[in-house]
Amino acid sequence: MDQTDFLSPADAGLDWIGADGPSADIVLSTRIRLARNLRDHRFGPFARPEDRAAVRDTILDAAEEIESLRDGIRLEIGSLGSLERSLLLERHLVSKELIGEGDTGTTSQSMLLLGSPSSVGVMVNEEDHFRLQSLVSGLRIREAWQEVDRLDDEMGNRLAYAFHPQFGYLTSCPTNVGTGLRASVLMHLPGLVLTQEIGKVLQGIVQVGLTFRGLYGEGSEVVGNFFQISNQTTLGKTEEDLLDHLTKIVTQVIQYESHARSVLLRDAPTVIEDKVWRAYGLLRHARTISFEEVMNLLSGVRLGVSLKLLQSPSVYTLNRIMVFTQPAHLHRAANSTLTQTESEVHRASFVRKILEDDEGQRRA
Amino acid sequence: MDQTDFLSPADAGLDWIGADGPSADIVLSTRIRLARNLRDHRFGPFARPEDRAAVRDTILDAAEEIESLRDGIRLEIGSLGSLERSLLLERHLVSKELIGEGDTGTTSQSMLLLGSPSSVGVMVNEEDHFRLQSLVSGLRIREAWQEVDRLDDEMGNRLAYAFHPQFGYLTSCPTNVGTGLRASVLMHLPGLVLTQEIGKVLQGIVQVGLTFRGLYGEGSEVVGNFFQISNQTTLGKTEEDLLDHLTKIVTQVIQYESHARSVLLRDAPTVIEDKVWRAYGLLRHARTISFEEVMNLLSGVRLGVSLKLLQSPSVYTLNRIMVFTQPAHLHRAANSTLTQTESEVHRASFVRKILEDDEGQRRA
Repeated sequence: MDQTDFLSPADAGLDWIGADGPSADIVLSTRIRLARNLRDHRFGPFARPEDRAAVRDTILDAAEEIESLRDGIRLEIGSLGSLERSLLLERHLVSKELIGEGDTGTTSQSMLLLGSPSSVGVMVNEEDHFRLQSLVSGLRIREAWQEVDRLDDEMGNRLAYAFHPQFGYLTSCPTNVGTGLRASVLMHLPGLVLTQEIGKVLQGIVQVGLTFRGLYGEGSEVVGNFFQISNQTTLGKTEEDLLDHLTKIVTQVIQYESHARSVLLRDAPTVIEDKVWRAYGLLRHARTISFEEVMNLLSGVRLGVSLKLLQSPSVYTLNRIMVFTQPAHLHRAANSTLTQTESEVHRASFVRKILEDDEGQRRA
Repeated sequence: MDQTDFLSPADAGLDWIGADGPSADIVLSTRIRLARNLRDHRFGPFARPEDRAAVRDTILDAAEEIESLRDGIRLEIGSLGSLERSLLLERHLVSKELIGEGDTGTTSQSMLLLGSPSSVGVMVNEEDHFRLQSLVSGLRIREAWQEVDRLDDEMGNRLAYAFHPQFGYLTSCPTNVGTGLRASVLMHLPGLVLTQEIGKVLQGIVQVGLTFRGLYGEGSEVVGNFFQISNQTTLGKTEEDLLDHLTKIVTQVIQYESHARSVLLRDAPTVIEDKVWRAYGLLRHARTISFEEVMNLLSGVRLGVSLKLLQSPSVYTLNRIMVFTQPAHLHRAANSTLTQTESEVHRASFVRKILEDDEGQRRA
């Protein structure tokens, strides 16, 4: 298919914002990725152009034989413009590394294969030779694992993985050696932030060997009270153990968050209701707005919807606003390059339109 | 009439918020008051109880013979509760002095006579024996003067004023000696505040012998970008000269304000539009709000209505919100004493209701 059309289905790769998974009002999405390398090719910073080319060809050959990858989307990262690369990043479909914004800084022979359904994908010639990813809505660690594990089996049947009998899967960065597994759960924790318990909770998360990050993964700041919680360790434990541990902790954090919300509703109902409605009022009426402010206001509205203080919009609508008000998505919708000022006007207009339509539907 | 019912007509004494006067989008109201004392009674801090009683009787006798006062409302301040006194203050119908919050601290024999129409009134046993007041919507210095001057003539025909051939009318405080006239124009100057020219303009006002104050007169802070501009001098000039001078300066300030607004619209249309709509969004949706915040947000909305960035609400509606969200008005509407927290919830609810109705009407 034409590369420039790769996002023509407006929601390509956006299964994860469907808000149809369990605990979707607190857990936005679950992502699991496996880092894999091929035995007979140098990897990481030692990979030569011929290694990258061979990896690419080998993986494409394998993908041809795998049903879930055969009919999906294939993108040559090197031939994508910066807007298209940013679109992929904003949809959480690629890592910064894959689109050339990481340490290696190259996109030579890099590809994204999006499966069908597009909740699974393969990043080729990323930091590792390839990474398999499953990204789904809500808290679905088990399902995401089954999906990516099946794909890993299918690939493993056709490819010679770099695998060490003692260490496990070998990876470019030692922190991924072992299972090569990273499972992340994107959580919305405004209750814990408002009750100022978040520090304690995050500390606890670190103490049990997990880690937390912002919306865009490693090195990104926390915006809109979203926290990505994931396993830190990849070595010395089975995949099952890692996933069970994450599930257990995330389930606990959901309980803490729910409890914080009910405490807020009990002790400061007016303050919360006011906060929620003011956030809605600003989103509904602002004429110019930054992405960061949108995220912070969406956090308030999301809390309100979850607490049933607001009858609308739906969590799915909120997720859509979050994705489509990012810079590259705005540029794409405007079909032209926007200055920062123009971008903030477009963003406000987009948000207003969505909420207005939503209000209209509710009234009708 | 029963004193407790004195504000039963919900808009008693509120002609001045009608928004039907000239330049009503910039000039909220015009007020002229004349300070008068009776020749044969001590006044100011020297007045004895018998002086205050005699003044009261004398003025009531005169009022009986004056058509515009005969059918109006008469209120004994001393028998009003603090809520009712505050209501009068919030409607700009009395001074703090009259309701016992000034230097003398007494309301003995103090009265308010509201004329018919209620745009004219007489404060009896205020700082001076009595003060005549005319309070009208928009910029109407001439009309307000004619109204109060006619009342002054009618009173003067029946009463022996304390008048000195060289100084003019004698008053309790020397700053009022001469004409006893204070004319004030309540102006909304957000354009000059936003362009930061307000300091220069206010300085100019003082240099030409005028003075400025906040919404509630002497000693009150500026809120919501409202400035009361009035004459400082009362001695050595005729009433005509004083009023002409004020008219000239206020007309100039209106021009400056209009110019500032067009500069803002030209140079920062998005910023202004955003400011205006955010103010509307917060008023329309907040669940708890202080009076000061209401005033500041109303200022934004008023600017938006004046610049036709907002199609509604009307200036009259904005004026109503301003009056009816004051603490005493809220208490009265709730028919009970409210804590500060309750008051802020009632205030938000009142504002929301008015704006919601207004939106409904516009949509219908």
